[in-house]
Amino acid sequence: MAASGDLKKIKCTVQYNGTAYAGFQRQREGEPTIQGAIEEAITSLTGETVPIVAAGRTDAGVHAHGQVFHFSTRSRIPVDRWPAAFNTRLPRDIVVVDAEVVPPTFHARFDARARTYRYSVWNADTPSPFWYPFSWWVRQPLDVERMREGASHLVGRHDFAAFAAAGSSARTTERTLFRVDVEEESVGPKARRLIHVWVEGDAFLYRMVRNIVGTLVVVGAGEEEPDWVRRVLKEGRREAAGATAPPQGLTLWRVDY
Amino acid sequence: MAASGDLKKIKCTVQYNGTAYAGFQRQREGEPTIQGAIEEAITSLTGETVPIVAAGRTDAGVHAHGQVFHFSTRSRIPVDRWPAAFNTRLPRDIVVVDAEVVPPTFHARFDARARTYRYSVWNADTPSPFWYPFSWWVRQPLDVERMREGASHLVGRHDFAAFAAAGSSARTTERTLFRVDVEEESVGPKARRLIHVWVEGDAFLYRMVRNIVGTLVVVGAGEEEPDWVRRVLKEGRREAAGATAPPQGLTLWRVDY
Repeated sequence: MAASGDLKKIKCTVQYNGTAYAGFQRQREGEPTIQGAIEEAITSLTGETVPIVAAGRTDAGVHAHGQVFHFSTRSRIPVDRWPAAFNTRLPRDIVVVDAEVVPPTFHARFDARARTYRYSVWNADTPSPFWYPFSWWVRQPLDVERMREGASHLVGRHDFAAFAAAGSSARTTERTLFRVDVEEESVGPKARRLIHVWVEGDAFLYRMVRNIVGTLVVVGAGEEEPDWVRRVLKEGRREAAGATAPPQGLTLWRVDY
Repeated sequence: MAASGDLKKIKCTVQYNGTAYAGFQRQREGEPTIQGAIEEAITSLTGETVPIVAAGRTDAGVHAHGQVFHFSTRSRIPVDRWPAAFNTRLPRDIVVVDAEVVPPTFHARFDARARTYRYSVWNADTPSPFWYPFSWWVRQPLDVERMREGASHLVGRHDFAAFAAAGSSARTTERTLFRVDVEEESVGPKARRLIHVWVEGDAFLYRMVRNIVGTLVVVGAGEEEPDWVRRVLKEGRREAAGATAPPQGLTLWRVDY
């Protein structure tokens, strides 16, 4: 299909199972990435070579329920046909679920007002054959009430330096979290359950959600008191907080504009 | 570990993602099966070669949330250690979640009073990167109320010949369904949803649940009236009912004794 129409900017919502990918961002040749797969699909559909810009880059093994990206095209494909067109070209673990035309000034990353992540912990004696690619298996029983109390210290505007991965290049480590909710879901059979940590904020430091979850799990396991989270936050040293939770439990749930 | 204790009968509950398997039942050499994997794990743990007997055989691609099987062993492994022992030997898409000692007369298949299956339909314009191994993708919008009305005709004791796969060897095609519920789950983003059909009965004919779901989807799509299900059931001819729904949407949810 020739790309011969007027230049349009298109905003897409995409879901992906990140298990098989080296993350969102294009890497050196040969590493499969979400960005690479989507850009190849655009080239295949329109003949154009165009970069896409996402709301947030996700690491290897991290999933998306509602990642957002934009790109510009001269294609004459009607906007409501873009999801189906994409999905004929994409592998089945990447699905474009929505597309709309946006003004030329729209920017998927800079215009995002809020991002919501879900982090899932599989908390049971035995693992799950369904959840292992989408959760962190923690055997030790976690106290959800303690995790909630610890989480409450993180809501609001704070310096999140203690939860920023070392080597992060952000100019400032101040961020605002709108909510940190800890939800329990009984899955069965027997005492098998998921604990979902929902984190919504204006923006996030590199690995911030995974560092928060690693810290809340220390509290849930009873190794530290909930108030320790407040002290870690205040102290601002990454070494004081919990370990980084593994990537496969993390899902970029939605992005709001 | 030597198998040198008294002979004990053990009942286990197992979950599996059936995607990679040629079904539950052992096949000719080289075909991976759930039964084969479990029996090899027992041999590896105890040195014994023992057959396992399951509550219900599941077809290739069908999953289990709560399949039950029994076996006899002289192993001295304490019964509460059996799940963890199994899981060190099983691939991670098969997980034993519970084990208990049962009387020598217990039989996983003959003693089951009720079996519950869940069949999941992914009903949306675009597919899901998470649900495709666990659902049947039906694009056409389905009317859940019509499906419920159609399903209501199936509850109770009936001759289910119309829903038995051709070549089925059952002596009688009479079965009792205790419930057939149609549940709707909004998944998002946009109008993306799952429709779960829950079927609980005393016993099932070969492919009975998948044939019921294929028939209810015809009604949900508006191609037949709900009352057609009653007529199909009464008429008793397989050709009159809907097509067989694909295996990957089916999960053996639980077995009651």
